[in-house]
Amino acid sequence: MRVRGAPLIGATAAHGLALALSVDPGDESLDAAASTLIATRPTAVNLRWAIDRVVAEVRGTSVDHREEAALDLAIRICDEDVASCESIGEHGLALIRGRFGEAPDRPIQILTHCNAGWLATVDWGTALAPIYKAHDAGIPIHVWVDETRPRNQGASLTAFELRQAGIPHTVIVDNAGGHLMQRGLVDAVIVGSDRTTATGDVCNKIGTYLKALAAHANEVPFYVALPLSTVDWAIEDGLREIPIEERPASEVREISGQTASGEVETVSLFSEASPAANPAFDVTPSRYVTSLITDAGVCDASREGLAALRSAT
Amino acid sequence: MRVRGAPLIGATAAHGLALALSVDPGDESLDAAASTLIATRPTAVNLRWAIDRVVAEVRGTSVDHREEAALDLAIRICDEDVASCESIGEHGLALIRGRFGEAPDRPIQILTHCNAGWLATVDWGTALAPIYKAHDAGIPIHVWVDETRPRNQGASLTAFELRQAGIPHTVIVDNAGGHLMQRGLVDAVIVGSDRTTATGDVCNKIGTYLKALAAHANEVPFYVALPLSTVDWAIEDGLREIPIEERPASEVREISGQTASGEVETVSLFSEASPAANPAFDVTPSRYVTSLITDAGVCDASREGLAALRSAT
Repeated sequence: MRVRGAPLIGATAAHGLALALSVDPGDESLDAAASTLIATRPTAVNLRWAIDRVVAEVRGTSVDHREEAALDLAIRICDEDVASCESIGEHGLALIRGRFGEAPDRPIQILTHCNAGWLATVDWGTALAPIYKAHDAGIPIHVWVDETRPRNQGASLTAFELRQAGIPHTVIVDNAGGHLMQRGLVDAVIVGSDRTTATGDVCNKIGTYLKALAAHANEVPFYVALPLSTVDWAIEDGLREIPIEERPASEVREISGQTASGEVETVSLFSEASPAANPAFDVTPSRYVTSLITDAGVCDASREGLAALRSAT
Repeated sequence: MRVRGAPLIGATAAHGLALALSVDPGDESLDAAASTLIATRPTAVNLRWAIDRVVAEVRGTSVDHREEAALDLAIRICDEDVASCESIGEHGLALIRGRFGEAPDRPIQILTHCNAGWLATVDWGTALAPIYKAHDAGIPIHVWVDETRPRNQGASLTAFELRQAGIPHTVIVDNAGGHLMQRGLVDAVIVGSDRTTATGDVCNKIGTYLKALAAHANEVPFYVALPLSTVDWAIEDGLREIPIEERPASEVREISGQTASGEVETVSLFSEASPAANPAFDVTPSRYVTSLITDAGVCDASREGLAALRSAT
């Protein structure tokens, strides 16, 4: 968890392979590093995608040139990620303009869950890229930031990013989003994705599914922003086929924050005598997703929608 | 927030009036104490219900006997609350037996949100009463306990109650319930209510609505346990007519827990530079409620269902 966010996990893993090859460029070292890195996080598909790319690239390269080849590709993956996220931002901006006009007379209220900004990618982010692009284009935006328990990526990372960018926002507990949608206070939901099936099911941070249900019940558009590299073309049924990482109970039981004297302190929220479960992701079936905002354009969350984008790239 | 839980708020307010009358039993004192107490919490209906009862009782009593009359009634309200909650437990037990059998071969998995146990009432609780009764009857139960941000009444109070009772349970973040329901890991949801409309809309702790949507989408029964005193017979549309208490942003920003050395410490989770919103309750429309479990029996969450129970009492 030193590195998080599907695109950043991929880019970092590529650099990790290059690093392993700088120590020992042999086949055994390559395979061992690849397996170790893949085993770190079971849910995000970019991890495997990036490692497969690097392994394929260096496998046919002489041992002497493997480190350099891996590093070149890792840098390329980073550059591609920046371009890909910026492209998501531009397609998302067009979507926002199409839906809310060039100059809305009040702020567009966007709810986001977890952190899918530049802290989760190499730059721009996925879910936040359209928000940055809209803000830069002078479209007034206000973001409802789900705190995103248990690790509070929303309250700590997304709120930080939005503060840096000067974008108005309000932190809420994860429980509040449905209520806000009922009251007409959310114009759109935009989230990222750790893995998307070929049929448009979306695996993302735990709690995303509840927001999708609320958006559906209240006719609020629910958008998922992702690079096509996040699509796992081999799977169709997200609920059956995507492994959900179960993380330590301590992430639910303990939380860190700043004391009045400015020190970082970890406190325990409930007794060790009560067990806790900590599934880290959930799957939102495609029928609750209004559109996918990808680096290749906006499409329906469906096999047809994704296939059309894929064949166009 | 020293006192919480709709039934306990009512019982405590009745004692508060008795206390005010012990200082000054005059009409002005009575009216002032009643207004002050009613203004403390806008959402729970038991508060007004208990105060109206005491005021009506003592208004026709001579000033000399008002303190005694108020205290007698406050004690009666407490006794009635215990009987009413135990009755909810018995009706809920019958419902559980009817649905899952006398001796299920695996634990019945019940998800609950917030704390509606004996810490929120005078005894037994509302949502937890059927769980206690089922456990006492030898029916195996496992409870998924929503931590219930921002004040964590689930993790701190419900988990405590269940530990005391020796009932197996697991604490989860509020984000996890939808995922568990998708996976078939929740057999029923039982929550309490701070105010219920004459048509069966349910106002309860923020986040309840999201769990109701997930239960509905996954065909998991969603039960609300409440004494009929929690019904506001004067209102029909929960979304339009129930005022939602907006509580301080500090409840979202700060959290208290125990440090490694055992001290209670409050830590700040995100910067003061990011505002927070804190709506404390939400409204679940009656169409998402499978049944109401009341002290007068189980009924549909509808005008007809509630009216039939009311006329039978």
